[in-house]
Amino acid sequence: MTPPFRIPDEFIDRRNQRLKPALDEDYSYLARQLERRGIDIEAVTREVMELEIAVPSWGVGTGGTRFARFPGPGEPRNVFEKLDDAATVQSLVRCAPAVSLHIPWDEPEDAAALREHAAALGLRFDAVNSNTFQDQEGQAHSYKFGSLTHVDRAVREQAIEHNLHTIEVGRALGSTSITVWVGDGGNFPGQVSFRDALARYLESLQAIYGGLPEGWKMYLEHKLYEPAFYSTVNNDWGTSYWCASQLGPKCSCLVDLGHHAPNTNIEMIVSRLLQFGKLGGFHFNDSKYGDDDLDAGAIQPFRLFLIFHELVSEARRNPMFEAAYMLDQSHNVTDPIESLMTSAIEVQRAFAQAWLVSSRKLEEYQSKNDALMAHAELKRAYQTDVTPILTMARMRRGGAIDPVATYRASKYRILKSTERPQTRSESAGIV
Amino acid sequence: MTPPFRIPDEFIDRRNQRLKPALDEDYSYLARQLERRGIDIEAVTREVMELEIAVPSWGVGTGGTRFARFPGPGEPRNVFEKLDDAATVQSLVRCAPAVSLHIPWDEPEDAAALREHAAALGLRFDAVNSNTFQDQEGQAHSYKFGSLTHVDRAVREQAIEHNLHTIEVGRALGSTSITVWVGDGGNFPGQVSFRDALARYLESLQAIYGGLPEGWKMYLEHKLYEPAFYSTVNNDWGTSYWCASQLGPKCSCLVDLGHHAPNTNIEMIVSRLLQFGKLGGFHFNDSKYGDDDLDAGAIQPFRLFLIFHELVSEARRNPMFEAAYMLDQSHNVTDPIESLMTSAIEVQRAFAQAWLVSSRKLEEYQSKNDALMAHAELKRAYQTDVTPILTMARMRRGGAIDPVATYRASKYRILKSTERPQTRSESAGIV
Amino acid sequence: MTPPFRIPDEFIDRRNQRLKPALDEDYSYLARQLERRGIDIEAVTREVMELEIAVPSWGVGTGGTRFARFPGPGEPRNVFEKLDDAATVQSLVRCAPAVSLHIPWDEPEDAAALREHAAALGLRFDAVNSNTFQDQEGQAHSYKFGSLTHVDRAVREQAIEHNLHTIEVGRALGSTSITVWVGDGGNFPGQVSFRDALARYLESLQAIYGGLPEGWKMYLEHKLYEPAFYSTVNNDWGTSYWCASQLGPKCSCLVDLGHHAPNTNIEMIVSRLLQFGKLGGFHFNDSKYGDDDLDAGAIQPFRLFLIFHELVSEARRNPMFEAAYMLDQSHNVTDPIESLMTSAIEVQRAFAQAWLVSSRKLEEYQSKNDALMAHAELKRAYQTDVTPILTMARMRRGGAIDPVATYRASKYRILKSTERPQTRSESAGIV
Amino acid sequence: MTPPFRIPDEFIDRRNQRLKPALDEDYSYLARQLERRGIDIEAVTREVMELEIAVPSWGVGTGGTRFARFPGPGEPRNVFEKLDDAATVQSLVRCAPAVSLHIPWDEPEDAAALREHAAALGLRFDAVNSNTFQDQEGQAHSYKFGSLTHVDRAVREQAIEHNLHTIEVGRALGSTSITVWVGDGGNFPGQVSFRDALARYLESLQAIYGGLPEGWKMYLEHKLYEPAFYSTVNNDWGTSYWCASQLGPKCSCLVDLGHHAPNTNIEMIVSRLLQFGKLGGFHFNDSKYGDDDLDAGAIQPFRLFLIFHELVSEARRNPMFEAAYMLDQSHNVTDPIESLMTSAIEVQRAFAQAWLVSSRKLEEYQSKNDALMAHAELKRAYQTDVTPILTMARMRRGGAIDPVATYRASKYRILKSTERPQTRSESAGIV
Repeated sequence: MTPPFRIPDEFIDRRNQRLKPALDEDYSYLARQLERRGIDIEAVTREVMELEIAVPSWGVGTGGTRFARFPGPGEPRNVFEKLDDAATVQSLVRCAPAVSLHIPWDEPEDAAALREHAAALGLRFDAVNSNTFQDQEGQAHSYKFGSLTHVDRAVREQAIEHNLHTIEVGRALGSTSITVWVGDGGNFPGQVSFRDALARYLESLQAIYGGLPEGWKMYLEHKLYEPAFYSTVNNDWGTSYWCASQLGPKCSCLVDLGHHAPNTNIEMIVSRLLQFGKLGGFHFNDSKYGDDDLDAGAIQPFRLFLIFHELVSEARRNPMFEAAYMLDQSHNVTDPIESLMTSAIEVQRAFAQAWLVSSRKLEEYQSKNDALMAHAELKRAYQTDVTPILTMARMRRGGAIDPVATYRASKYRILKSTERPQTRSESAGIV
Repeated sequence: MTPPFRIPDEFIDRRNQRLKPALDEDYSYLARQLERRGIDIEAVTREVMELEIAVPSWGVGTGGTRFARFPGPGEPRNVFEKLDDAATVQSLVRCAPAVSLHIPWDEPEDAAALREHAAALGLRFDAVNSNTFQDQEGQAHSYKFGSLTHVDRAVREQAIEHNLHTIEVGRALGSTSITVWVGDGGNFPGQVSFRDALARYLESLQAIYGGLPEGWKMYLEHKLYEPAFYSTVNNDWGTSYWCASQLGPKCSCLVDLGHHAPNTNIEMIVSRLLQFGKLGGFHFNDSKYGDDDLDAGAIQPFRLFLIFHELVSEARRNPMFEAAYMLDQSHNVTDPIESLMTSAIEVQRAFAQAWLVSSRKLEEYQSKNDALMAHAELKRAYQTDVTPILTMARMRRGGAIDPVATYRASKYRILKSTERPQTRSESAGIV
Repeated sequence: MTPPFRIPDEFIDRRNQRLKPALDEDYSYLARQLERRGIDIEAVTREVMELEIAVPSWGVGTGGTRFARFPGPGEPRNVFEKLDDAATVQSLVRCAPAVSLHIPWDEPEDAAALREHAAALGLRFDAVNSNTFQDQEGQAHSYKFGSLTHVDRAVREQAIEHNLHTIEVGRALGSTSITVWVGDGGNFPGQVSFRDALARYLESLQAIYGGLPEGWKMYLEHKLYEPAFYSTVNNDWGTSYWCASQLGPKCSCLVDLGHHAPNTNIEMIVSRLLQFGKLGGFHFNDSKYGDDDLDAGAIQPFRLFLIFHELVSEARRNPMFEAAYMLDQSHNVTDPIESLMTSAIEVQRAFAQAWLVSSRKLEEYQSKNDALMAHAELKRAYQTDVTPILTMARMRRGGAIDPVATYRASKYRILKSTERPQTRSESAGIV
Repeated sequence: MTPPFRIPDEFIDRRNQRLKPALDEDYSYLARQLERRGIDIEAVTREVMELEIAVPSWGVGTGGTRFARFPGPGEPRNVFEKLDDAATVQSLVRCAPAVSLHIPWDEPEDAAALREHAAALGLRFDAVNSNTFQDQEGQAHSYKFGSLTHVDRAVREQAIEHNLHTIEVGRALGSTSITVWVGDGGNFPGQVSFRDALARYLESLQAIYGGLPEGWKMYLEHKLYEPAFYSTVNNDWGTSYWCASQLGPKCSCLVDLGHHAPNTNIEMIVSRLLQFGKLGGFHFNDSKYGDDDLDAGAIQPFRLFLIFHELVSEARRNPMFEAAYMLDQSHNVTDPIESLMTSAIEVQRAFAQAWLVSSRKLEEYQSKNDALMAHAELKRAYQTDVTPILTMARMRRGGAIDPVATYRASKYRILKSTERPQTRSESAGIV
């Protein structure tokens, strides 16, 4: 059997040669500009080179809505092929070395084999994700009316068991954290007792928490609505924070940018969780209406910057600070690999821009109530075109100066559509 | 073969006997109360008896989200069984004599046979619905990037053709209208030229409009978002109105309660479309966040009343006024038959309450800028418990005094789960 | 000097005589209906008779917007006249025996005199409200850039001092609680450090908390936005809860229905705060868009009911439970007295309806995941026209069967417009 | 009497000298970069030099909320001083040569004198704004319950008369357009008949339209809510478009960025109005929650860019296209002059960035459904730091390279606080 196609590093290098002179010129000019503003470009580039953004295993396939899914050619058919695609993302952008698995979607029959496959691709495993928002074939109890919060203890125990099993899978793969998101909630006022459901949720979480291996972390993900459309058990950061506090130091909150009410000031939520020591990580994406799961930075790039302004401020304050960053998007109309690469770069962009803010100046303006100049300090950072920094960081790491063009030129997707013949077309929607 | 189980009329009657005395008492007491307020209860009851609310064929199956679908027992497996369930709804509530079909989901091989089946069940066919938001097996062109608005003329022609075909199916079944809703739009700023897309949409609609048989109507349904998450071609009532105006008198606008931006004053949209002569009909449901497709009246019953206040005001002004009313809900956690019955009654409730408003008094208060009393006039109507009117209207038509209890007592669903063995469980979500 | 006009109790009684027969009939019929449902009407009526809703001193004047204020005739010109109007509300509805003062707007020169005046009118004083969102003449430091969170310690100390002074005033008047709401926040990203502002807020609150007299309570009121339009220091319930927890048992959270993001599930916030022991009270009003301060129940009456469902559930669980209820509305187009009376009755309505819910049945349906019937149990309670209960409770307390008609018949407002000649028209807006 | 202080052109020039070398360097580097992308920087700079953004007379004073207004030092006390401040803005940014007056706030006793004053300052008059949302001293009828839509014909006539008078004032000053915004609406369901109010609105507008002088234009401004909090007569673009269509070719629609429901796709509204030939102009500002009237670009700069992408696309299509651009902001915490300058530049920024989009490439990507690259084409334009273009355009016109720093260095505000002693502090709020 021919091994699956990978984009050779030399291919990337060769393509880079053509673009390098312009990059060098842009980079050195930006260096000059930033120097005038008192900023050392190399320090920022180094920060960018350290930033890591995980890719979810489900993100490399085409997403869909309840109305339809329109698959693309050459989609990965199993977790090994998903890792291949993630490795392709990583080889081109060099900031996405970790993959976040969904259990049972990506449960490996042989964990050791999968771990080896990943290692061979230069990948490792980020947080594992449990799934109790769907029923799996052969499952004893249905999650139609809840999982960790179900009124029936047997269902809750099954859901807890699944989480503990997910941790086991993760441990075998080298993960050190689990993200718990449940779809539990109600569609009708009266369907669910808010209090009892929250109490059961916490009790179930405690059982999972108790099963965390040494050194593991647990992330709670809240969401305002969907799949439940009237109430959800972990509906906002306040609830998530309260639960995480009850559980203990290994548990913190994960923020998905699409899980909030309209007009919510998400950067303030980030600040609160940082201040209270409970900010665990992010699911990056963008949204205009609900949990749209669009590409990061596609709709409100300034919001993404403001979120990173909070994160970078924390990093400056506390060099030990770390948070888990992951893309969680639904790629319905683009090639998932292209969207993942582009989105990772947009996250880097916001991060790099945030490092251009002068804390000293900002604090001085704030201390004088000079709202205009404080804002201008943020805006100047945001308006700076940091593309040369991102590109230089990527290239230095071995990635592509122009990832999308390189990817397209490699004919990766076309080759995959031959390598991966699809057995069935799955486009039926659920309305 | 044993014919499928139907709830016998005698069963309904028998159950009604027990409840009738209390109903009579409540009804006559309400009559007395309303008389004090100058309202003839019989006039309202007659109006309620005339109201018809169509049931969509897809509404009798369990709905789902992009995350999962949790089917219930005894679900209908084909359009004949869907009609059976719709007939059960109708036999119990007697205000839902028409079914709205989705083509191709419910496309009959033999239209005449289906029409006969419906007639035998006492049902007829309401508006047909075309579907160009999904790809069907064997379809030449994909709708991944649009249908009536696709950049490629061949795709648009295929979509137009499908609509014309849907009209043909509808004609064979005795329908006299088509509802056009498309998922066309974009997920990224820049993906779609708003102007060109709208121009193509209008051009495609004109082709469909040209194919409307004598006496037919066409309803345009707008939607703010989903499945497209940045822009949709017919995104709001203003766009829908403009298109309907360009098309001509056979075309008007359909309002789905879940298709608007947060905080939108939907009753005002209803008023506008009535005033401009372009209100064609409704898809009733309720929502708290987005297009949640919850049961009508479950979240904002007062809003439903205010909408009917506009509709009833129009009906009083213009006795020829008519609009197409349909339930369009996703029954994810309830028995669809129970939800449809309950929702139809909630629509009746808002309608009956609206008839309790005294136009004369309301106008008088409005003419004096007596905001408090004008509001109180609406509130007094809304706060009246019109249950006895709805129940009496239902019973007089042959329906059940307590439809849900009667339905449950009949063991309909349990019998159907034996009659309709499912071949596969379809619970896979699309995230 | 002629004493100010008050509506004589005999006037109320006389008007009631005409309406009493119909009330008796309606009440006894409702009693019969409820008995059929297993509910003792008298138990509910007694609960209603115990419910108290405070009136804010500023609520008896005509409100306005930043665009304009359109005063009405006979507005109260000072705190004594405000109490007169509050007493009129109370004499007609008999559920509003307490007044909530705003300091310095209503600061009495002679607290003892004011307390005596109130007592003579049968009123007492509810929570006092501090005001550091405006500058007062002669004030040393401006609150333009914040009060309790200001970067300058001197400003914070001034604001703390004002709160301590407000407590003093309240103590002299017999109040036992203070509500703290500040307008502090920012209009620009960058203007304010979220973290530092929250830290300063907490520190200032601790100083106030330290000054609470024995037996006093402190309520923190959060608000998403306005007057600050980008960020506010206490912006959501999560922040409010965290602060109240840091402060101690005397401090809890106050929920204003208009202070949340669009689509927020407020009844769930109420449930959370109850569950965590930090629900202190409410500012009732209604809203469609932002902090519209419309009359309670005017826009989303079902939401109000759902909130009371949570509160009544708590009251059933814990007979010691109490919360501070106040109307906080802006009466821009109605006679404030009429709006206050009507709104108090709408609050009573939601409260009475919530008592009609059978906890036993609801819990049974919930335990069986019978979403439809659980919802129906709430809806049946909500759809019951409890007007006879509210009216009977009011009449038994000595109030008017028809408060608005009685008030209008008394010519109170007309007489006040003579008694209270206005010295200036204040209608200039701030845009 | 000493003439009021103005910032001398030489002062600006002198300050520019220091900054010019860096600007030249940045500009020529950007020119080089853009050349690589096939863009002629000079063409863009020329476009920027032609762009004009009007300043509203009320924008030079400190704004406020219904809670409070915190005035700043040296505020203009009359329309002459307002023009002085507008001239200062213009002298520093050179893209704001026109002032939009509010009648009666800025009604001149001697129009000729005012016109002369403006001419001397190098200013002219943009659209005049009528005001029927407030009562003015001595006015016969109150607008408490509406103006152009009032149920009483006499009030409507007074409001029409005021608009015709405003046109007269505008004509005397050299304006050629009027913007009509009214606060008419309702706070309670039932208060207003939506249909009758819209009919009266249109009738009143027709009377005003009939009074438009030769060559004049009329702009209708819609707004979702505030000051009315349940319904407004011209509540959305659909209504505004319908009215403008009924009125005729001289009437078109004005879009204020803060007047829409949450999540609304405003760039699509812009596209619609352009497509239907009814886009008249803009009131620029930014908002996070409601009509926050924050500085343009402060919250959602990418949205501003997307709006300009629609406008520039139209300009490319139709070189005759023109629209009226105005800033309409409430400067509550900044020096209004600084905010106006900064905001004008942010508008320029979005405009310049939109000119960097390659229509040819964008259309090509769109024609291939290459969503990712179509989006990337917009993003590349948006991410370009066009500051050197804006600065060069400004400097070439005689403005300041760093307007805020130059303004501060001039001590303008300090001098004005001496020149303009305030007679009273107006900080009372309306809650």
